[in-house]
Amino acid sequence: MSDVKARFGRPLRLALVGGGPASWIGRMHRSAALLDGWWELVGGVFSGDPVRSRTAGIELGFAPDRCYPDVDAMIAGETAREDGADAVAIMSPNDTHYPAAAAALDAGLDVIGDKPVSHDFAQACDLVERTRRKGRLFAVVHGYSAYPMTRYARWLVKDGAIGEPRFVQVEYLQGSNATRVEDGPLNRRLEWLFDPARSGLALVMSAIGCHAQHLASVTIGRQVARVAAEVGALVPGRRVVDHVSALLEFEGGVRGTFTATNAAAGAENDVRLRVVGDRGLIEWCHREPSYLRLAMQGEPLRVIGRGDPYLPGEVIAGGRSPRGHPEGMLQAFANIYGEVAQERMARSLGDPLPAFQYPRIEEGAHTMGFIEACLASHERGGWATVAPLPAQ
Amino acid sequence: MSDVKARFGRPLRLALVGGGPASWIGRMHRSAALLDGWWELVGGVFSGDPVRSRTAGIELGFAPDRCYPDVDAMIAGETAREDGADAVAIMSPNDTHYPAAAAALDAGLDVIGDKPVSHDFAQACDLVERTRRKGRLFAVVHGYSAYPMTRYARWLVKDGAIGEPRFVQVEYLQGSNATRVEDGPLNRRLEWLFDPARSGLALVMSAIGCHAQHLASVTIGRQVARVAAEVGALVPGRRVVDHVSALLEFEGGVRGTFTATNAAAGAENDVRLRVVGDRGLIEWCHREPSYLRLAMQGEPLRVIGRGDPYLPGEVIAGGRSPRGHPEGMLQAFANIYGEVAQERMARSLGDPLPAFQYPRIEEGAHTMGFIEACLASHERGGWATVAPLPAQ
Amino acid sequence: MSDVKARFGRPLRLALVGGGPASWIGRMHRSAALLDGWWELVGGVFSGDPVRSRTAGIELGFAPDRCYPDVDAMIAGETAREDGADAVAIMSPNDTHYPAAAAALDAGLDVIGDKPVSHDFAQACDLVERTRRKGRLFAVVHGYSAYPMTRYARWLVKDGAIGEPRFVQVEYLQGSNATRVEDGPLNRRLEWLFDPARSGLALVMSAIGCHAQHLASVTIGRQVARVAAEVGALVPGRRVVDHVSALLEFEGGVRGTFTATNAAAGAENDVRLRVVGDRGLIEWCHREPSYLRLAMQGEPLRVIGRGDPYLPGEVIAGGRSPRGHPEGMLQAFANIYGEVAQERMARSLGDPLPAFQYPRIEEGAHTMGFIEACLASHERGGWATVAPLPAQ
Amino acid sequence: MSDVKARFGRPLRLALVGGGPASWIGRMHRSAALLDGWWELVGGVFSGDPVRSRTAGIELGFAPDRCYPDVDAMIAGETAREDGADAVAIMSPNDTHYPAAAAALDAGLDVIGDKPVSHDFAQACDLVERTRRKGRLFAVVHGYSAYPMTRYARWLVKDGAIGEPRFVQVEYLQGSNATRVEDGPLNRRLEWLFDPARSGLALVMSAIGCHAQHLASVTIGRQVARVAAEVGALVPGRRVVDHVSALLEFEGGVRGTFTATNAAAGAENDVRLRVVGDRGLIEWCHREPSYLRLAMQGEPLRVIGRGDPYLPGEVIAGGRSPRGHPEGMLQAFANIYGEVAQERMARSLGDPLPAFQYPRIEEGAHTMGFIEACLASHERGGWATVAPLPAQ
Repeated sequence: MSDVKARFGRPLRLALVGGGPASWIGRMHRSAALLDGWWELVGGVFSGDPVRSRTAGIELGFAPDRCYPDVDAMIAGETAREDGADAVAIMSPNDTHYPAAAAALDAGLDVIGDKPVSHDFAQACDLVERTRRKGRLFAVVHGYSAYPMTRYARWLVKDGAIGEPRFVQVEYLQGSNATRVEDGPLNRRLEWLFDPARSGLALVMSAIGCHAQHLASVTIGRQVARVAAEVGALVPGRRVVDHVSALLEFEGGVRGTFTATNAAAGAENDVRLRVVGDRGLIEWCHREPSYLRLAMQGEPLRVIGRGDPYLPGEVIAGGRSPRGHPEGMLQAFANIYGEVAQERMARSLGDPLPAFQYPRIEEGAHTMGFIEACLASHERGGWATVAPLPAQ
Repeated sequence: MSDVKARFGRPLRLALVGGGPASWIGRMHRSAALLDGWWELVGGVFSGDPVRSRTAGIELGFAPDRCYPDVDAMIAGETAREDGADAVAIMSPNDTHYPAAAAALDAGLDVIGDKPVSHDFAQACDLVERTRRKGRLFAVVHGYSAYPMTRYARWLVKDGAIGEPRFVQVEYLQGSNATRVEDGPLNRRLEWLFDPARSGLALVMSAIGCHAQHLASVTIGRQVARVAAEVGALVPGRRVVDHVSALLEFEGGVRGTFTATNAAAGAENDVRLRVVGDRGLIEWCHREPSYLRLAMQGEPLRVIGRGDPYLPGEVIAGGRSPRGHPEGMLQAFANIYGEVAQERMARSLGDPLPAFQYPRIEEGAHTMGFIEACLASHERGGWATVAPLPAQ
Repeated sequence: MSDVKARFGRPLRLALVGGGPASWIGRMHRSAALLDGWWELVGGVFSGDPVRSRTAGIELGFAPDRCYPDVDAMIAGETAREDGADAVAIMSPNDTHYPAAAAALDAGLDVIGDKPVSHDFAQACDLVERTRRKGRLFAVVHGYSAYPMTRYARWLVKDGAIGEPRFVQVEYLQGSNATRVEDGPLNRRLEWLFDPARSGLALVMSAIGCHAQHLASVTIGRQVARVAAEVGALVPGRRVVDHVSALLEFEGGVRGTFTATNAAAGAENDVRLRVVGDRGLIEWCHREPSYLRLAMQGEPLRVIGRGDPYLPGEVIAGGRSPRGHPEGMLQAFANIYGEVAQERMARSLGDPLPAFQYPRIEEGAHTMGFIEACLASHERGGWATVAPLPAQ
Repeated sequence: MSDVKARFGRPLRLALVGGGPASWIGRMHRSAALLDGWWELVGGVFSGDPVRSRTAGIELGFAPDRCYPDVDAMIAGETAREDGADAVAIMSPNDTHYPAAAAALDAGLDVIGDKPVSHDFAQACDLVERTRRKGRLFAVVHGYSAYPMTRYARWLVKDGAIGEPRFVQVEYLQGSNATRVEDGPLNRRLEWLFDPARSGLALVMSAIGCHAQHLASVTIGRQVARVAAEVGALVPGRRVVDHVSALLEFEGGVRGTFTATNAAAGAENDVRLRVVGDRGLIEWCHREPSYLRLAMQGEPLRVIGRGDPYLPGEVIAGGRSPRGHPEGMLQAFANIYGEVAQERMARSLGDPLPAFQYPRIEEGAHTMGFIEACLASHERGGWATVAPLPAQ
């Protein structure tokens, strides 16, 4: 792969939307983009306030003329330069995702976007169509599905190791909103998070639930077809959604359950996935991201570690050190950034595309359809169908 | 407590219904009844076939004249004796639970019954009323809720340790029916299990799901009020229910999720419970029955072990060895057998009743209501209300 | 096996030495002997004080004429009866083990003895020779090696699954003596424990260390040949030994390490064993007694559960319920009691002996040799050889 | 701290010795140096072969004129430049560590050196003295002690949380040399590893054992005073050391055990540390680097996670994301690189030094003394004293 890098001749150039100096997720995105040398960071927009944006960009070490006051200026500026950005990474508040992504696509840039991809399903479908029309790449940063061991889970399911999938359980519990944080004081992040107009149709889904649904869908390679959901707030009096539990039916009749809440007092930030097939099951949790449990009916439980020698090469390639040397979310993010770059370079060079695929805009759009179906199901007190994606 | 035993002057006498020499659960019941010296086993009915019943009873070491051909004969025989049984323990096929229990109650005997208590909710309510009318004890053998650490969970919730309960997750997954075992060859146990007329309204609920629901309900001290359930078979073409997943609403608006399946290929026989309150959460799983996890918001996770010195006396009393000496399901069963005996003796002696309470017929009846609500919810594709118990 | 029981025609008769009503380990022994119906308890000596012994025995439910004032009276009484004891189980203070066992053997009784078998190696060798001379059975109650999964470990090593053993780590840490409990108040148990003349050459070895050494030796089927040990007290000013750490060389040059301490503040009562062979390793810990970890070089870790269907029949036979139903130390103890009975009955009936063997007096004697070698090594600050057992 | 970075005005400049394009540990060092923006990589020596060194450096993206043929040329070249390196990071074969470090120190450069710091204790003492004489910084890259949670362990011990340390267990087991890899084919790395003249006095100690000893020493803040060790090869016929087990006595009489082997077939690359104090104990293992277990006598086990809100600020600062987001060895390495930079900048600016301290040359030298004492102990079959460091 570094051969690709060499033949391409230069790292790709990435402009940023969001992720100022105080943002840990911004730092994570920047570190991930840089980790393997696929990207060069060139500048961006770092605040909704033009003056702050400039100051923040300079503090992050960018050249002042590439610290832009807003997304339009950035796109104008970058597309005008010979050495302008190849892609835009978006990690700003949720309500800015759609316009920033649409503008970037229209300008012919690739997009690496934090979730949710948009406010609603209609916007998401619009992004799908723009991406296709412009022939661009659009990656959604679902880091959980980019760990070597969640990718191996996907590989195992596809390979038939556990037989036909029958039942999927996925949950993401967090305690960040277990208390009435919205009673203040509110920093800028909490301000937009607790404003439903800005954070999206269902806060907990935009924040964490989307990751859980995506991980389940991508692991079994099936979208959610129907859902019966309970949507609401575990914290009394809360105006935003802090809890969704749902019964799932995936394409092909696979059953499942789903829970996402950030109002679970005492919960670690843990994602748990179990896929039951007709011959065995797979378990993964974020607390031990480098291990996958495989229990075949009538055989001992197997605990498979990142870097184990029997793993397929494309799974091993998702790690950067031998087995037993802990890696984490940074490396998962870096896998996504690397794969976007590899695909872009491979397309330029006429090379075959890499084996593992970062999460794409279609997956982000399906998530928006899933969220809308949860809301509809809750409204009617029964099952609701998830709307299909735009036909290709 | 052994003081009670001494003052009562003799162990209580227990007759058995079911649990022949080849039945591991029968052996478990007998060992549990004997473990702490509360009970003496006097005889019983050990097969639906009168000849086998006698042979089996003799093989188990009972006096031939107390190895009865059927339940009616047993009740007639035992009530006629001066040293006749005080109670009946029922561990026969599901369809025999109700008539055996009803007959025993009518004859003035206490009942220790394996689950499900009856075929349906109406029968269960009938047992509730007979038990009350006759002033008898009726224990349902939900061993999971009789472990010292599930009892401590109950204690903690009641004590307010995790604040107001908000959300409960419970699941019981097993792989025993992951393949088409019903295609044969069928032993006598499989024969009745796969005959819905004999095993009950929903096989997986009678077999294991009832334990999960009971554990959740008893831990938070609330019944299930409403349910939205998916009921069916994960194994294609199966006629009995091997999977139920449900969204729960407990009394007082506590939310929850429930999953029971015995068609999970590769699954260990594991029950998992998590109770989230507004200040922290509790986790327990059957794989590590002697440990309880308590995670308070903003504090380290605490792992509490059976026998730890800070535990309340009534929790410690549920164990028989110091911390770090593994105990298991036998001791949990023995707790139930012991508590029935203690209550019976305490009533005779006018003593106060023991602190922890074995699961009662009302709880068994609620489970039958829960199962019927799951089926109704599935039928209508929406929420269904759990019917209330007969008023006292 | 129950066939053996039937053909033998009656349970064996067991008399007890020690284990009064307040002793949890006494209760464990009695429950274990009774659990599977191999033994009948007939009476015993329950205190060093003749009056207490009688009262205690009666409280335990024994016939007054079989509650003896001392061991000699018991042996005289029991051997004089037609229905006298077949065997004696010894669970009294350590300094009484040797004389009680010697007397029982001399009277032609089998012995089931708690550890340590004697005060020193010479006494232990004497018991070996008496046992052989009299053709009796002498079991040492090392429960840790009687769990199904430690037995499977032994089976795997013998079967060559992990190749040639190279390195063994074993440890037993406990916190019971982490504080200066000897400063009082002392109950009767603490009194003799903290009197080196009564508790043995090294308190921590008599109490727990012997189990760890035994488990290591029996799992790899090799005695300890040489040892370099540090022996002393972690608690300042303590007169008894509360800590031994040692480098081991087993027969055949297998290396190992050993640690036993009951002065580890905060420690659970946990035994950990790891056996490294030239192809893979095995791990077991007492905290999860029903699981064995097998890690073959270049393969996934396997977690093997009690009751798993691929286990050898003789391993499965050590359990009493299907996989996923926790069992504990009681069942391990009951395995030892059962196997002694099976062997005794098999010898009477001319049957072949059972596959798994309870720990024998030779093993108990080797432990005494190991303890003496630890002390000698510590004394000289270098390696010491473990004395060999009496030749057969 | 980024304030320090801003006031210093530029990142520090780092030249590399070793770590070519194919080396995962080289990549780890480079990523770690870059992760937080403290360092700029300027060039180095990337092979013992001058031509390869240049090619490798260019492949890594360095300017050709800073890809040097050897260390002397690099030091000459860098010290001659206005923008020359501030420090040298050494990750070349073990026998090159001492001369490269000595040359760098003599030229007034700081050193970040992989372990072992030298071939023997005498060389290590020489490095201590050169470092002091020149007033330079010398960090030893013991990543294990730079995880937030091993640092919190150190903090807890120092704070008296577990009382006086009494007993320490440390082990590092790996399977990399479980088979006769030295029988070939040998790549360049295996060539020097299996040549004792190049890899050091005891291969397993240079490779991994040093980390275990360092972690134990630094956590309790005490050096090893005396040792009784078994040193040798678990793999028959092997000429290098693949196994060391030892009894330890730390300063002040704290007891301990130590095991390091890379010949443990099936072992994960796991380091385990347990520190027992007179009030409780601490456990950490590398497999779960973000969690620390704290068991106080008579209290529940506490599992403390990286990022938990009650942790001291300087411990939290060792992480880069909130609790529940896995981080790994890269971040631990980056902590060391960052702290060297912070100290260098702080010294320039007259600022106070950072709270946590990277491992220093004195610690590396103590390790060499420890290794020599293990060899001496093995030779004599008894205890050996660890030589003291040069007095300040």
